[in-house]
Amino acid sequence: MAKKNLQTLKGFRDFLPEQALAREEMFKKIRVVFQKYGFLPLETPVLEYKEILAGKYGDEGEKLMYQFRDRGERDVAMRYDLTVPLARVVAQYQNELVMPLKRYQIAPVWRADNTQKGRYREFYQCDVDVVGSDSIIADTEIIACMAESLTALDITDFVIRINNRKILDAILKNSGIPKGKTVDAIRVIDKLEKIGEARVREELALLGIKTKGRQDLFEILNAGFEDTNDIEVKLAEYDGAGELAELVEILLEWGIKNYQVDLTLARGLDYYTSTIFEIILPDAPQYGSIAGGGRYDKLIGMFSGKDIPAVGGSIGIDRLASALEELELIKYDLVSDVLVCNLDEELEETYLRVTKDLRAAGLKVDFYYTSDKLDKQLKYADKKNINFAVIIGSDEAAKNEATVKNLMTGKQVKMKQTELVRNLKS
Amino acid sequence: MAKKNLQTLKGFRDFLPEQALAREEMFKKIRVVFQKYGFLPLETPVLEYKEILAGKYGDEGEKLMYQFRDRGERDVAMRYDLTVPLARVVAQYQNELVMPLKRYQIAPVWRADNTQKGRYREFYQCDVDVVGSDSIIADTEIIACMAESLTALDITDFVIRINNRKILDAILKNSGIPKGKTVDAIRVIDKLEKIGEARVREELALLGIKTKGRQDLFEILNAGFEDTNDIEVKLAEYDGAGELAELVEILLEWGIKNYQVDLTLARGLDYYTSTIFEIILPDAPQYGSIAGGGRYDKLIGMFSGKDIPAVGGSIGIDRLASALEELELIKYDLVSDVLVCNLDEELEETYLRVTKDLRAAGLKVDFYYTSDKLDKQLKYADKKNINFAVIIGSDEAAKNEATVKNLMTGKQVKMKQTELVRNLKS
Repeated sequence: MAKKNLQTLKGFRDFLPEQALAREEMFKKIRVVFQKYGFLPLETPVLEYKEILAGKYGDEGEKLMYQFRDRGERDVAMRYDLTVPLARVVAQYQNELVMPLKRYQIAPVWRADNTQKGRYREFYQCDVDVVGSDSIIADTEIIACMAESLTALDITDFVIRINNRKILDAILKNSGIPKGKTVDAIRVIDKLEKIGEARVREELALLGIKTKGRQDLFEILNAGFEDTNDIEVKLAEYDGAGELAELVEILLEWGIKNYQVDLTLARGLDYYTSTIFEIILPDAPQYGSIAGGGRYDKLIGMFSGKDIPAVGGSIGIDRLASALEELELIKYDLVSDVLVCNLDEELEETYLRVTKDLRAAGLKVDFYYTSDKLDKQLKYADKKNINFAVIIGSDEAAKNEATVKNLMTGKQVKMKQTELVRNLKS
Repeated sequence: MAKKNLQTLKGFRDFLPEQALAREEMFKKIRVVFQKYGFLPLETPVLEYKEILAGKYGDEGEKLMYQFRDRGERDVAMRYDLTVPLARVVAQYQNELVMPLKRYQIAPVWRADNTQKGRYREFYQCDVDVVGSDSIIADTEIIACMAESLTALDITDFVIRINNRKILDAILKNSGIPKGKTVDAIRVIDKLEKIGEARVREELALLGIKTKGRQDLFEILNAGFEDTNDIEVKLAEYDGAGELAELVEILLEWGIKNYQVDLTLARGLDYYTSTIFEIILPDAPQYGSIAGGGRYDKLIGMFSGKDIPAVGGSIGIDRLASALEELELIKYDLVSDVLVCNLDEELEETYLRVTKDLRAAGLKVDFYYTSDKLDKQLKYADKKNINFAVIIGSDEAAKNEATVKNLMTGKQVKMKQTELVRNLKS
C-alpha cells in the first residue's frame, strides 16, 4: 500500500500514548465525580436502527449522520449523540429501570460535520442526565456535578452562566415577536457573543421585532441582579423568574458562587424547556462553552408517547482538552514510574525478580528487554518520561545492591535490592 | 414510532447501570495491571479508510466487515479488530513512537458475524502488545500481564496453555503433510478440543497425512513434559523447542506455575510465528479460552514494508464476563453508598448540606429529590442497592441529629449530623 494512504479519515484522530493517557485520566476523574453524585453508567451501542435516530436532529443533523444499509439490508446509523439512545432505553426498559434514572455516559459520537476550528467527526460526549424528576434540585445537582468535575480537573477559574428558557420566551413575546418566530429569535440571541449586539438587533428586526420591542428586549436582557430577591422583583412579570430565583438559591446552598445570571444566554438547541446553563473559561474564551445543558421535559418521552421530565449536562471533552493544553493545565502523568535497566544478560534473573517485586508493590515498571549500553537505555527512559532507573551491574549484583537514578534530578543513590520497593514507593 | 421497533440491532446490546458498572470496574482493574506492566493506552478511530482494513482478515473477515461509502464518497469501514489499526499507527508515526511500543487498547470492534452462542456483533477487545522487540521476555511479560489481570478480577483458578508454532509446523512437516497444507492442518488441530481426536485424524487424512504420519504426529502431540530440560530433550529434533523451554523458564521466574505445555494448542489465526498461548477456566470450560495471544513477527510490518517483531495478548471480556457471572464471581459494586432521604420540604437546606458534606468526603450519595413517605424512599434505595439511608425528620433536625439505617441489616443508629461523615466513611 502506498505510504500516502496511511492516514486517518478527515475529522478522525489517533491518540498516541501520552495524549491517550491524559484523556484516560480526565475520564477517570470525571467518572469519580459523577458517581459521587449518584450517577451510574449506561452503555448503548454505536449502531442503531436508522429509524430510531432519524427525524430527531433536524434537517442539518440528518445530513450529518453516518448512515448506511448493512449486509442484512437493515438501514442503520452511527449514534449522533447520547440523548436519543437514552430516550430509546427509557422507553424500552421502562419496567426495569428505577426512576428517577441518574445515568452518565462517556462515549464517542459521529457527525460528518465540516472540520474547521477544532471540530471533529468523531468526538466524545460526556453526559449526565436525571430522567423522571421535575425537581429543580435535579437541575442544580447537574450544574454542581459539572462544576465539581471541572474542579477535579484542576480548573479553578470558570463561570457558570445560567438562564431559564421560559423567561427568554416571555421576554421575546413581550417584545412583539411574531408567532412562530421565537425559536429563530433564540438562535439569533445565541449568537450574541459571536456577532455582537448591533448585528443581533439587525437580525431581530428582520424577524419582525419593531424598534421599541428591540429596545425593551435589550434593556431587560442586559439587566443585572443583586440577589435572588432582585431577580424576582425585576422579572416579576415573566414566567420562570421564580424558578430561576430558586435555582440560584439552591446553587448557593451547594456552595456554588461562581454563577452569573445571564438573560442573553439562549443555548442553540430548541428542545430546552426551562433551566439552561453553560460554563466558560474566562482565561480561554476562544473555546466557547466547555460544558452546558439544561432541562428538556419534552424530549425523552418521544418514544414512549408521554412526557418524561429530564435535565442534563454535558462536558465538551475535546474542546476542554484543547483549552487545558493551552492553559498548560493538562498534566501528563508519568508514563511509568521505573525502568529496570538491562546491562548484563547473565543478570536477567535478578532484573526479572526486581521488576516483579516493584510491580507487586503497585509501581508502573518498564523493563528493558535486551541488554544494551546504559546510555541508550537512559535515553529510552527519558523519551518515555520515566522517573527512576534501577541500574544493576555485575558489581552491584555481587553485593545484592542496586543504583537508583532519579532521571529528573540526575541524582543517584546506591541501596540494597531489598530496599528498592520501600524507597521507590515513597 | 411503533413500540415493536424499540430495539437494538441483532448482536448489539445495551448495558443497564448495574451491568455497565460491573464492566467499568473490570476495565478499571485491567487497566491498572496493564499500566503496572509498563503498557500505555493508544486510541484509534472507529472508522478507517476501507483500504486500510481490506484484505487483512481473509475472505471470511471481508464478508463480516461493516463497510460503506460515506457522503464524501469515501469507502470506509468500522474497525474489525485493534491489531490492523495498530499496524497502521506503527507505520504512520514511526518517527514519533518510542520503540519498543508497549500499548494497550480496550475498545469495541464490529463484525457482522452470526450471533449464536454468546457471539455479538459489537464486542470489546482488550489488547496488550509489545511492538518492536523480539525478546522472549516480551512474550512472557504478555502472558504474565494477562495472568495478573485475571487475578485482579478475583479469578484464582485458570490454566495457561502454551505452545510454539515453530514446533507445531516442524511436527507437521515430519508427519509428511503435503506442501501448502500446513495452515489447513493447524486449523484442524485447533478444533481438537471441540471435535475430538478421531475426527481430527480423519480430517488430517483428507489433507494427505498418511497413517504412519498421523500416528507419529499424535504420539508427539500427546507427549507430557516434566520440566524445561525434558522439553529440550523430547523435542530436540524440532525447531522452536529451545524457545519454548526458555519461555517456561522465564514464566517460572515471574512466579507463574499454572502453565501447561500443550503441543496440540494451535490457535486458529494463521499469523502467529512462534509463541502461542491461551487461558482457560477449568470451572467454566464451556466458555473456551477467555484470553490468548502469541508472537506475530510478520504482521505489524504490513504497512511499512519491513518486518517488525511483535507479541500480544487479548482478554475476551464479553466471554469472561459471562463466565464470571456463571461462576458468581462478578461483584456488582454498591450502586451508591448513601441515600439522603427527603421527608420534609422545610428541611431541604439541611438535606442539601448533609448531601454536600458526604460527597465532599468522597462518598457516593444519592438524594431523594421530592419529599415523600419514608417507605417509598427506602424501597427506592433497596432497588438501587444502596447501603445506608440517612433519615432526618423534624425531631432529629431540631437536635441536629440524624438516623442512619443500614439497609443490609435493618439496624438503625441515631447520631449528631456532624458525626455522619466519620461514621459513614468507615
